[in-house]
Amino acid sequence: MKKKSGNREPHLYDKLKNYSCENFYPFHMPGHKRQLSLGPAVHFPNPYSLDITEIDGFDNLHHAEGIIRNSMEWAASVYGADKTYYLVNGSSGGILSTVSGTAGTSGTILMSRNCHKAVYHGVFLNRLKSRYVYPQFMPEYGVQCGLSPLDIEKMLKTYQDISAVFVVSPTYDGVVSDIRAMGEICHRHGVPLLVDEAHGAHFRYSEMFPVSALDLGADVVIQSVHKTLPCFTQSAILHIREGYVDRERIERFLQIYQSSSPSYVLMAGIEQGIRWMEGEGRERMREFSRELTDMRRELERMRHLRLLGRDVVGTMDIFDLDASKIIVSTKGTNINGVQLCERLRRDYGLEMEMCTEDYVTAITTVMDTKEGLFRLRDGLMEIDGSLTENGGEDRRQENRKGDGKQEGERNGKDRGGEFWRDWELEQVMTIYEAWEGEKEPIALEDCEGRVGGEFVYLYPPGIPILVPGERITREILNVIMRYRRLGLPVQGLKDRENRMMEVVRDGKIGCD
Amino acid sequence: MKKKSGNREPHLYDKLKNYSCENFYPFHMPGHKRQLSLGPAVHFPNPYSLDITEIDGFDNLHHAEGIIRNSMEWAASVYGADKTYYLVNGSSGGILSTVSGTAGTSGTILMSRNCHKAVYHGVFLNRLKSRYVYPQFMPEYGVQCGLSPLDIEKMLKTYQDISAVFVVSPTYDGVVSDIRAMGEICHRHGVPLLVDEAHGAHFRYSEMFPVSALDLGADVVIQSVHKTLPCFTQSAILHIREGYVDRERIERFLQIYQSSSPSYVLMAGIEQGIRWMEGEGRERMREFSRELTDMRRELERMRHLRLLGRDVVGTMDIFDLDASKIIVSTKGTNINGVQLCERLRRDYGLEMEMCTEDYVTAITTVMDTKEGLFRLRDGLMEIDGSLTENGGEDRRQENRKGDGKQEGERNGKDRGGEFWRDWELEQVMTIYEAWEGEKEPIALEDCEGRVGGEFVYLYPPGIPILVPGERITREILNVIMRYRRLGLPVQGLKDRENRMMEVVRDGKIGCD
Repeated sequence: MKKKSGNREPHLYDKLKNYSCENFYPFHMPGHKRQLSLGPAVHFPNPYSLDITEIDGFDNLHHAEGIIRNSMEWAASVYGADKTYYLVNGSSGGILSTVSGTAGTSGTILMSRNCHKAVYHGVFLNRLKSRYVYPQFMPEYGVQCGLSPLDIEKMLKTYQDISAVFVVSPTYDGVVSDIRAMGEICHRHGVPLLVDEAHGAHFRYSEMFPVSALDLGADVVIQSVHKTLPCFTQSAILHIREGYVDRERIERFLQIYQSSSPSYVLMAGIEQGIRWMEGEGRERMREFSRELTDMRRELERMRHLRLLGRDVVGTMDIFDLDASKIIVSTKGTNINGVQLCERLRRDYGLEMEMCTEDYVTAITTVMDTKEGLFRLRDGLMEIDGSLTENGGEDRRQENRKGDGKQEGERNGKDRGGEFWRDWELEQVMTIYEAWEGEKEPIALEDCEGRVGGEFVYLYPPGIPILVPGERITREILNVIMRYRRLGLPVQGLKDRENRMMEVVRDGKIGCD
Repeated sequence: MKKKSGNREPHLYDKLKNYSCENFYPFHMPGHKRQLSLGPAVHFPNPYSLDITEIDGFDNLHHAEGIIRNSMEWAASVYGADKTYYLVNGSSGGILSTVSGTAGTSGTILMSRNCHKAVYHGVFLNRLKSRYVYPQFMPEYGVQCGLSPLDIEKMLKTYQDISAVFVVSPTYDGVVSDIRAMGEICHRHGVPLLVDEAHGAHFRYSEMFPVSALDLGADVVIQSVHKTLPCFTQSAILHIREGYVDRERIERFLQIYQSSSPSYVLMAGIEQGIRWMEGEGRERMREFSRELTDMRRELERMRHLRLLGRDVVGTMDIFDLDASKIIVSTKGTNINGVQLCERLRRDYGLEMEMCTEDYVTAITTVMDTKEGLFRLRDGLMEIDGSLTENGGEDRRQENRKGDGKQEGERNGKDRGGEFWRDWELEQVMTIYEAWEGEKEPIALEDCEGRVGGEFVYLYPPGIPILVPGERITREILNVIMRYRRLGLPVQGLKDRENRMMEVVRDGKIGCD
């Protein structure tokens, strides 16, 4: 009672509660899709009733010896891991722990440039050097492709100081790389392969999906159970395959990066989500697989919009594709991804996971209803029927297999988006050196040639467009400014209006 | 379906659900006390229904510009902070961010030695040097006292390289230090005062409680709303007072140490908890204050057990005491704290927050029922009636004000526990150097004189008994071995049986 409260009543809770009564259908995470009539939500009690602390008989996540340990051992046996950990600070906490626990201090990590920002944060915190492998870019869809095992081998041969390899597979768009080949290469060089499989927790539940990295030789695999299984947001699991990593060292960092008061609601939600998948969920998964296949088959018939389908597998390092991700490209049509999102939301009450310049991403899961899938299908088909080709070409005639060399696509007509192409930025200094160094804010237009002092990324997906320590090119600036104009969620720029960027004060150091 | 699941069914969820139906009464966190008929829990819907992600209109915790920003600004106005952040990775995440965001890299932090392990983790991650101020120890209760502002001033004068001061107030036991004096000292030396007020989120809601550090000049204050307010476990808030800290730098680390998929259930729970306190909760708080006062008055009449009361304020750097923490000392009686806990649990269905060698801690909050408080009072009074003095002395005649010099207490009869006395351990190397250095496991008995290579602590409260880099003394070993014998939750030792400790391989380096 010592201070008066402000006048503006907060309304996060109320808005969430109202939203849950509205008719919006989620094609985004979390994977439970707010389905109260199916899965673990059916019987889940008032969360306050389960929300306890580490009292007698209820174990301790950070020194699990009882009921939590038993639950995690069961999860390990389900997933076929040597050891599985429940994560309450998301995959982010698991990724930080994995980088910190494997790459050593001040060592060098080889990572795919399309990793989530948490990997970069791990590099920063541990003052590591980072080297990158880049995915190819598929111009006719605007999506990133897989990673080449050969690129990884080349880097490991060239740089002897690499102590760990971190890749993302599947990507946010469901593109899976050849993990088995990568694992063999890494192990031949005596380094662990660490895989951000945040979007692959559901893989093991249907033959329709790709094989999990855990079954293909990866040493650490992190999965966001909240993304594609019926689990709460912020919950995830981390699997270890013994042999190439120091389990105790990873455990040390799990204790550091996760709250010492972990939520029993989140932990119980992980257990219940997996348990449901192992029981009733199996039958529902069979139905869902059929429904998904049917929907995909119909969406392939769109005339203007284009569904990313299995025809791309085998090209551009795409080893496999997660069918549950619905990637619909607007390239070559008279609308862009942002506009498609808006129409789906406004006219059909469908909320997408991600809207990019060139495509939209819908996450489907075992918790999707038949009606929900129909609504997405009908919405896309109807919008497709209303579109025209942007350049008058009949896109249906084109070779739909991308080979990365279709220069014809990249003319004045398309809206660009190839920021992954020609994008191997020069690393002038480490992330730690640049982010901790003296910096100054500069107008975005004037940054060319300077060394970036902050992360710039779109969220989602949270993959850095620019990393501190990289030299800023005209192309990168154009990409950022175009995103800004399109109203895409560019984050990390100095000011709210996204007009300034922090660059390293003596940006010329280390160049030439 | 690719792997068979294990046989041992997990039962974390089931056990939590069953436990919620049992008649155990919680005198531990979380502060909502699983009260479904009062507070935010009454109307809280199925949590899956509120559990969304950063979709249109729902803002982003890590770049808050809409509904979350509004909610946090409201919380700041309620608490009187310049800026308030919702934390979804507990106070731990807030503490890591505060240390990382204020102490600079590779600098020196001055901290109280009774800080939570998260502060030490922050020191480790940032490769900081740490210097300590030690609280006194109150032998007749076995609890730690407050911190001396003069000690802080002395250290700041002696060591010019200190860039931030971090203290815990209140302690786990409700002991509050003189924050105003400390703040003035820190600011005179141009450094920020950072306060772990994890156990003080409720302070502002009654004149009965101490004044919050936020109102006394602290620059950053971290509060675990889940501990003493009706909020979910793992949720907390961080307040900033502008002037001596770099807000943007702390924000950077909040983004790093917290999941990029923060839980809307946790965030909505914070908002609802504070909102309830600002509304209906005020009346309930008035009732609770009266009930608490009545209970404390009765507990003061115990003949053998001893309630830590306001008579200690003003002694031993105890500036104030949080009346909501019920600290009951068993010193001088024929049972110890662990045994008292067991009797309260077994005979009265009362679960305590913490059992130490010499006392038990019960957390009471505004959500406690009158019946719950009566049960605690009656249990303690009855047990007290069944006890005898350990040494036959009439404890009621003693001077109950501790002055730290009552050597008579520390004879063969008492069970020790004074690990805070004579305990200024030699720091041979930094936490980073020791924890990351070459180590070897040694039998506990043989560790004397070696340099510790791991944290050893009791959880709760999670305060390190031994920090990596400190020289291990015979006294510390005795304390650890005694705790082990008593069955207290000693954590951090190398093996599950707590027989081995990791020490720095070349432990003699740096000594003499």
